[in-house]
Amino acid sequence: MEFTAKQIAEILNGTVEGNPDVKVNNLSKIEEGKQATLSFLANPKYTNYIYTTKASIVIVNNDFVPEKEISTTLIRVEDAYQAFAKLLDAYNQIKLNKTGISEKAHIPESAVLGKDVYVGEFAVIGDNVSIGNNSKIYPHAIIGDNTTIGDNTTVFAGAKIYSDTVIGNNCTIHSGAVIGSDGFGFAPQSDSNYMKIAQIGNVILEDNVDIGANTTVDRATLGSTIIRKGAKLDNLIQVGHNVEIGENTVIAAQTGISGSTKLGRNMMIGGQVGIIGHLKIGDEVKIAAQSGVSKSFKNGTVIQGSPAFDILKYNKSYAIFRNLSNLWDRLNKLEKKVNG
Amino acid sequence: MEFTAKQIAEILNGTVEGNPDVKVNNLSKIEEGKQATLSFLANPKYTNYIYTTKASIVIVNNDFVPEKEISTTLIRVEDAYQAFAKLLDAYNQIKLNKTGISEKAHIPESAVLGKDVYVGEFAVIGDNVSIGNNSKIYPHAIIGDNTTIGDNTTVFAGAKIYSDTVIGNNCTIHSGAVIGSDGFGFAPQSDSNYMKIAQIGNVILEDNVDIGANTTVDRATLGSTIIRKGAKLDNLIQVGHNVEIGENTVIAAQTGISGSTKLGRNMMIGGQVGIIGHLKIGDEVKIAAQSGVSKSFKNGTVIQGSPAFDILKYNKSYAIFRNLSNLWDRLNKLEKKVNG
Amino acid sequence: MEFTAKQIAEILNGTVEGNPDVKVNNLSKIEEGKQATLSFLANPKYTNYIYTTKASIVIVNNDFVPEKEISTTLIRVEDAYQAFAKLLDAYNQIKLNKTGISEKAHIPESAVLGKDVYVGEFAVIGDNVSIGNNSKIYPHAIIGDNTTIGDNTTVFAGAKIYSDTVIGNNCTIHSGAVIGSDGFGFAPQSDSNYMKIAQIGNVILEDNVDIGANTTVDRATLGSTIIRKGAKLDNLIQVGHNVEIGENTVIAAQTGISGSTKLGRNMMIGGQVGIIGHLKIGDEVKIAAQSGVSKSFKNGTVIQGSPAFDILKYNKSYAIFRNLSNLWDRLNKLEKKVNG
Repeated sequence: MEFTAKQIAEILNGTVEGNPDVKVNNLSKIEEGKQATLSFLANPKYTNYIYTTKASIVIVNNDFVPEKEISTTLIRVEDAYQAFAKLLDAYNQIKLNKTGISEKAHIPESAVLGKDVYVGEFAVIGDNVSIGNNSKIYPHAIIGDNTTIGDNTTVFAGAKIYSDTVIGNNCTIHSGAVIGSDGFGFAPQSDSNYMKIAQIGNVILEDNVDIGANTTVDRATLGSTIIRKGAKLDNLIQVGHNVEIGENTVIAAQTGISGSTKLGRNMMIGGQVGIIGHLKIGDEVKIAAQSGVSKSFKNGTVIQGSPAFDILKYNKSYAIFRNLSNLWDRLNKLEKKVNG
Repeated sequence: MEFTAKQIAEILNGTVEGNPDVKVNNLSKIEEGKQATLSFLANPKYTNYIYTTKASIVIVNNDFVPEKEISTTLIRVEDAYQAFAKLLDAYNQIKLNKTGISEKAHIPESAVLGKDVYVGEFAVIGDNVSIGNNSKIYPHAIIGDNTTIGDNTTVFAGAKIYSDTVIGNNCTIHSGAVIGSDGFGFAPQSDSNYMKIAQIGNVILEDNVDIGANTTVDRATLGSTIIRKGAKLDNLIQVGHNVEIGENTVIAAQTGISGSTKLGRNMMIGGQVGIIGHLKIGDEVKIAAQSGVSKSFKNGTVIQGSPAFDILKYNKSYAIFRNLSNLWDRLNKLEKKVNG
Repeated sequence: MEFTAKQIAEILNGTVEGNPDVKVNNLSKIEEGKQATLSFLANPKYTNYIYTTKASIVIVNNDFVPEKEISTTLIRVEDAYQAFAKLLDAYNQIKLNKTGISEKAHIPESAVLGKDVYVGEFAVIGDNVSIGNNSKIYPHAIIGDNTTIGDNTTVFAGAKIYSDTVIGNNCTIHSGAVIGSDGFGFAPQSDSNYMKIAQIGNVILEDNVDIGANTTVDRATLGSTIIRKGAKLDNLIQVGHNVEIGENTVIAAQTGISGSTKLGRNMMIGGQVGIIGHLKIGDEVKIAAQSGVSKSFKNGTVIQGSPAFDILKYNKSYAIFRNLSNLWDRLNKLEKKVNG
């Protein structure tokens, strides 16, 4: 795909300054711009790069006033960042626009597929599965029996959905993610063996949920593990059985949430956080990376530490922790002085 | 599947109180009970729900005495929890009762399969593999060359077993788990490159071992990485080369165990714990979540912290850590007073 | 495969002491040596085992002088460890010497495969993929569109490479690894929803890079996530979008590196370390396991803690932390004495 500056300006409703016929075939960052790529300038911190960038076209805000000569072609728009994001998204949609049902996929007669569904090579669709319009099932993805998937949802290569899962619209599930594996439930026996407790619940992902690569979401023992609409989970996260994650809550990589804990809405959870089971965490709570959460917290709290407590208090304590040997020495001196 | 209260009472050797013909087709928690589901009441904390639950049948202990009117049908049994667990397990076994060998699986002639083995679509069985009776190999699972698997073992979709692995009876390996990948062994060279050390050992899983989704167990450099019978591993755990995990030891999600460490029996290890290599941890040791274990510990120790030490001492220290700024202030005051 | 002591001595340019016709078919550790296996003695700590080992052949240094009678056959060489490592590697290369293109793999016409390439069952090669000589693509591996792979590279079973990835020579990618999944980029909207930012960059793995089982490497938003030559990544590691990892840097399991951080060369990073985004970490920096890195560090620093600082200072502080209750008591006493 190649586009001229003129064509792009028309799409973005902008004006060309420079060569309207220069062509680009890719996007780039302004500080790494190469020929035949298009970049953008929005953050003033990067203004200097516009005088040296090799990008053939740079999108700028209407009010941008150059202080030196510029050799690249400019496209002026109302909001350069938004315009670029729009192009980025359009580019991605073209790139990922897979369609058709591979003859090498395994699709039983009981499956109901919507319009324009893509099913890649060696994907396995279980019995009684329903998949909505425009959804994409990449190669090697596995959709377990009785699972329903909404519209515009993408399941990337090799993601594994166990039976009875319910997935909404506009979800993205990345490669290697496992949805619906058994919860970790074992009843200790008198002989110190453990008896497995059957896990017969399921997992529900509401609309607009993102699940990162190799993240695991366990099915409920009974009932459902629920990830509510708009929640975004990064890679390698563990979600235990019967957990509920609130709307628009964002969780960074390698965090783990133990069984039956309920997380509020609009939370922000850093990477490698651990949260024990059976807690109730309020809305808009923020948890710093690597924290260990061992009790419930109210709406809006910001916490850190293992176990975690108020982040300001944590930082004060940690500042002193770094100087504990100084404190130790001062106490020693004082003792000597007082005790003679 | 639908069952009447009468049928279930017969299976459980219980007595019906209410409508013996009411039908159920699923199980539920008493606080979330829906029509046509069966629930149970064992924990007195939940007694209140029995007067309002919508579950059509509730299993209760023989000695349960209602304090108000109950609209749901009861089945009285000796031990309500045990009876329900029995039904849960029966339900699960019916649901997971996959059988037959898919024509789309890859099974070489050298493979020896027992009675009633299930092999799903696109599963790959390597050369000289032996699989025992009633074992289930789900779609996309990969069983490497020369691997042996016992009876009643389940390998879920897309689990990957490298060559030469030995797996016992009644094991469960969840989706995405990797068994037998190379240990992380590299010899530093004079030019600061690293030379890979070939990893030619294998992995042994004894009977009744559970391996969680996306957990990784590295093969031994020489000899075997061994997980002994009854050990239960949650999701996203890392087990290094030549590690040994003792009988009935239970490990929560995202814990990592470095190469050549030996863990005792009946240990309980929390989530996100890290254990360095070449240690020997005793039987029944308990390790709190997120701890970092940097030295060996004796039988029965309970530890926390990074590095980990006695859990009571840890908690005392941490309580003071939370108030370090108070301690700091007091020391300042005292110094002023003493030094004038 | 069986070899006599005489044959092995010839390969290693060594001399046999004992029965030149004794046969071995496997390698073992001297402390676990079984009949028909070959072992080695290099570390003096293990000398005692040579008098009792059941290994049929033991490789020893030329200057080894036994103090008791030895029943096993010896092969004397210049450097016993190097000789054994050589055999280990040879053994492994024979074992992993898979060749041929499975008819069950999916390979489009646009794919260009080098000499002696192996492609296993149900592997999926995307459009416009190029794979160099002697590279091995194991069963169920997925190579996305437009990806290029160099010579002598191994992609183990079920590893998933997204489109546009560039992989060099002599790389190893273990089972379940995901290369090129979307970076975790979302723009918060006014209604507390998040809008996904399209991720159109790629991942570059230079030569001699190892990627562990179930490790995830996100593609760049724009540009490339780069892992430079000789870097070694263990299992279950998370590498965020636009990260760069320097040459010969070694990273232990379950570590996470957030977006846009640049790591230097020859670093050594322990397990379960977390590194936040947009940092620049110098060459030869060492980071202790479970540390949390929240700011940039210069070449050669050695750090620990969460947040991490100088490791010696950390250890001093932690030693006092372990005794905080003692410090607390002393301060109490002193206050009483001074304040009366």
